[in-house]
Amino acid sequence: MKHALSVTRQQNFAAWYQEVISEADLAEESGVRGCMVIRPWGYGIWERIQKLLDARIKEAGVDNCYFPLFIPLSFFEKEADHVDGFAKEMAVVTHHRLVKGPKGGLVPDPESKLEEPLIVRPTSETVIGAAMSRWVQSWRDLPLMVNQWANVVRWEMRTRMFLRTSEFLWQEGHTAHVDRDDAMRETLRALEMYRQMAEDDCAMPVIIGEKPENERFPGAVATYSIEAMMQDGKALQAGTSHYLGTGFAEAAGIKYQDKEGSQQFAHTTSWGMSTRMIGGVIMTHGDDDGMRCPPRIAPWQIVIVPMLRDDDGDAAVLDYCRDLWKELGALSAFGEPVRVLLDAKAAKASNKRWAWVKKGAPIIVEVGPRDVADGKAAVLRRDRLYKDDGKLNTSFTVRAEFVGQATAMLEEIQVALYAEAKARLDANIARDVIDLESHFKGDEAKFVGWVEVQWSRPSGAALDKIVEQLKALKLTMRNAPLDAAPADGVCFFTGDAAVERRLVGRTY
Amino acid sequence: MKHALSVTRQQNFAAWYQEVISEADLAEESGVRGCMVIRPWGYGIWERIQKLLDARIKEAGVDNCYFPLFIPLSFFEKEADHVDGFAKEMAVVTHHRLVKGPKGGLVPDPESKLEEPLIVRPTSETVIGAAMSRWVQSWRDLPLMVNQWANVVRWEMRTRMFLRTSEFLWQEGHTAHVDRDDAMRETLRALEMYRQMAEDDCAMPVIIGEKPENERFPGAVATYSIEAMMQDGKALQAGTSHYLGTGFAEAAGIKYQDKEGSQQFAHTTSWGMSTRMIGGVIMTHGDDDGMRCPPRIAPWQIVIVPMLRDDDGDAAVLDYCRDLWKELGALSAFGEPVRVLLDAKAAKASNKRWAWVKKGAPIIVEVGPRDVADGKAAVLRRDRLYKDDGKLNTSFTVRAEFVGQATAMLEEIQVALYAEAKARLDANIARDVIDLESHFKGDEAKFVGWVEVQWSRPSGAALDKIVEQLKALKLTMRNAPLDAAPADGVCFFTGDAAVERRLVGRTY
Repeated sequence: MKHALSVTRQQNFAAWYQEVISEADLAEESGVRGCMVIRPWGYGIWERIQKLLDARIKEAGVDNCYFPLFIPLSFFEKEADHVDGFAKEMAVVTHHRLVKGPKGGLVPDPESKLEEPLIVRPTSETVIGAAMSRWVQSWRDLPLMVNQWANVVRWEMRTRMFLRTSEFLWQEGHTAHVDRDDAMRETLRALEMYRQMAEDDCAMPVIIGEKPENERFPGAVATYSIEAMMQDGKALQAGTSHYLGTGFAEAAGIKYQDKEGSQQFAHTTSWGMSTRMIGGVIMTHGDDDGMRCPPRIAPWQIVIVPMLRDDDGDAAVLDYCRDLWKELGALSAFGEPVRVLLDAKAAKASNKRWAWVKKGAPIIVEVGPRDVADGKAAVLRRDRLYKDDGKLNTSFTVRAEFVGQATAMLEEIQVALYAEAKARLDANIARDVIDLESHFKGDEAKFVGWVEVQWSRPSGAALDKIVEQLKALKLTMRNAPLDAAPADGVCFFTGDAAVERRLVGRTY
Repeated sequence: MKHALSVTRQQNFAAWYQEVISEADLAEESGVRGCMVIRPWGYGIWERIQKLLDARIKEAGVDNCYFPLFIPLSFFEKEADHVDGFAKEMAVVTHHRLVKGPKGGLVPDPESKLEEPLIVRPTSETVIGAAMSRWVQSWRDLPLMVNQWANVVRWEMRTRMFLRTSEFLWQEGHTAHVDRDDAMRETLRALEMYRQMAEDDCAMPVIIGEKPENERFPGAVATYSIEAMMQDGKALQAGTSHYLGTGFAEAAGIKYQDKEGSQQFAHTTSWGMSTRMIGGVIMTHGDDDGMRCPPRIAPWQIVIVPMLRDDDGDAAVLDYCRDLWKELGALSAFGEPVRVLLDAKAAKASNKRWAWVKKGAPIIVEVGPRDVADGKAAVLRRDRLYKDDGKLNTSFTVRAEFVGQATAMLEEIQVALYAEAKARLDANIARDVIDLESHFKGDEAKFVGWVEVQWSRPSGAALDKIVEQLKALKLTMRNAPLDAAPADGVCFFTGDAAVERRLVGRTY
């Protein structure tokens, strides 16, 4: 069977991923190392994810703010002192002026050298911590909960669009609380919020759980993640939430006077989700014909393609399409007006149809002169593109009937995409593996899924040893699912009594 | 009469401006030179401006995208060659790693020096032009209209919160068209969009018109602006729209095949509006008690302050407030749900009332035990804060009556704030001034307003001479109003026949 893309997931998953991004106009290389251009369709998906997540953030009483892009180098010195895993790959601003160079061209003006270099923020704990230390005086000021939508930069050697780029877009929530309980409640609220965002908005089932000690955010007391299974069986960490204890508050001086009048350090949290999520959506829902957008996050949920022939009949087709566009636009789905595009661009209808298939618009409707005469529309559901015989699964539907079904159809597509991904996740976590090496052996591109083991939660050197063993098999520990069954056996790695269950797998 | 701020507009406008920003929790210094922290109330206003403008941008068929923060230095060399007014004050990234220094602390790793420095974008014409050259092939691809919401950096020596900061937030629209007419139509559409944003959303009347040659965006064929009059009589340019001709398309290679099959350069435009707008709103509507937010852009339009006494009566007051909150939240104003906050924070009610007065919430409602007993609420309109006798203009209104009036009241406040500012603008453009020096003489803080003159639109050296003359009086040319009466006299500066009218004034 022929597909719209030149390479299938089966043939080469990595090449397929790149082709979807290119053919669906999601993003492209920018010419700037490690930075991408997010194109309208990709950015539109991001705007939808933002909008839905932002509503959840606001509903939780978290206030959006904006903090500086630049962080003075000295802010990192504190951190470098007390944090072992200090990440040093960062963009450093050293000059503030360009001048014509001695050999022509432009060079940084040596006279504009900054006394203290500025770092382009890789994350904003330090600068937000400094602000919180000014804002928090009394227990009455707590909890203090802020969030920012921003770009951040982490200099990456190997980049991959959406999944790992030097610059990316994200939100970072930062909160301060009177005690551990309140901070932990917020840490888990944010985690649950990410689960809802992933599952309800993006139709991407995830496992929520705690990361092992070696994968904690540097300085965190506990790090939680949502982990999704991609169609190649690898895990994608798509959002994290950290309980930071009082360590960051002590470094930044976030202190409050409690009800009894004594000074206490606040307990802080931070949590983030980024444009990486779009990579997860592609690798969860994409097929050999391109992207498939879950309707809740599709920039356009229904696209109407008029079949124009550059003749007198075009006016009637366009009129009919405009009426249909109005009727559909008056509908609601998922509590919002349905987003309908009339694609009247000058191009062949079949080219436009395939462009929207590759972009993954949930419903594509074609209208030609015959449909106008019959009062019908040719409806294509992106999640059921082909019939069993390999032909396009186009349904010629009476217009009023289609309009009457459209909302339900969008809701069905959202459910169907989730169900498909959920079945894959559930079927591919092995719980009876005895030998990881033989389980994962063979072609690395082979779909294997994850393994759940029981373990004794070792730390320090004992943990390092396990991490090394797994690394040799190109495996990593994912999270310890919060809703897993209690441990009832021995540790897969140490033979000691197990205390929890943990996922192991290949990862992005 | 005593006011909530320690300094009045009359006493010291600049100090008053800083105090509003601080007391209304709009923004604060970040500790990073020239960069500010935008606090929740300030950022909330920005989110409102964004939301309303973004809807207009989308309605015009412009697609949001995202382009890289970093621009290779070489991109500016092209520009430096062909643009005289090339702005060189930019943040330059030269290294990508920090290491521990020989004397302790952290230093940029000399081994991580970039082969080509990267510039933190001051604006994105070059990098978006490069993308457009890839995206545009045929006349069918035009118009190509994109926009991004982003942070940009221009190294500023003297900064002032919102008005001139090294980092600021903005949107930049970039479009490419088949010919001058289509590009000019878009240039003026964006200008009109900014007028609507300023006048309809921010209640800030503006004059739309063309900037003089010396104030064009470097490389532009024509630059248009919206100009608003602040309460000290100075002008604030709050949005610009540029017709760029084919110059930028030639530099970036944005070419298309026309219907006849020959290659043409596209005509491009760009247009931008920034967080500077918030400074304009403060200086247009603020009074000696703080900020006054136009309801359309107020993060909270109505704030309910319960008067709590830490006793048994609190529960009844809170219940009553929650019911009121629900009733008000079910209303719509300006086609959106009314935004109502119940401020149940632990603090004295009078302190909370004054905090919301200083923030400029349009309607503040206090509820105490007596109001509950009487079925009333104490309603304060921020735009009519005091009675003639200097007392607070609180209106004790029957609850159902207030709920019934609330939508109309918000709409009235929006209209009233606009009318007040519009009357000031209209009354303070002098058209009969013969001697600028004597008109503007005296204390620079004195309110003078603007002068409209007729002129012959000189260019080159003749224009430079006028610019110098004005500069000596601390004056600049503002725009040439598009809706001004036709010229019918001689040029104020040259004595030649006038061709248009132009505004002159002090400016931010």
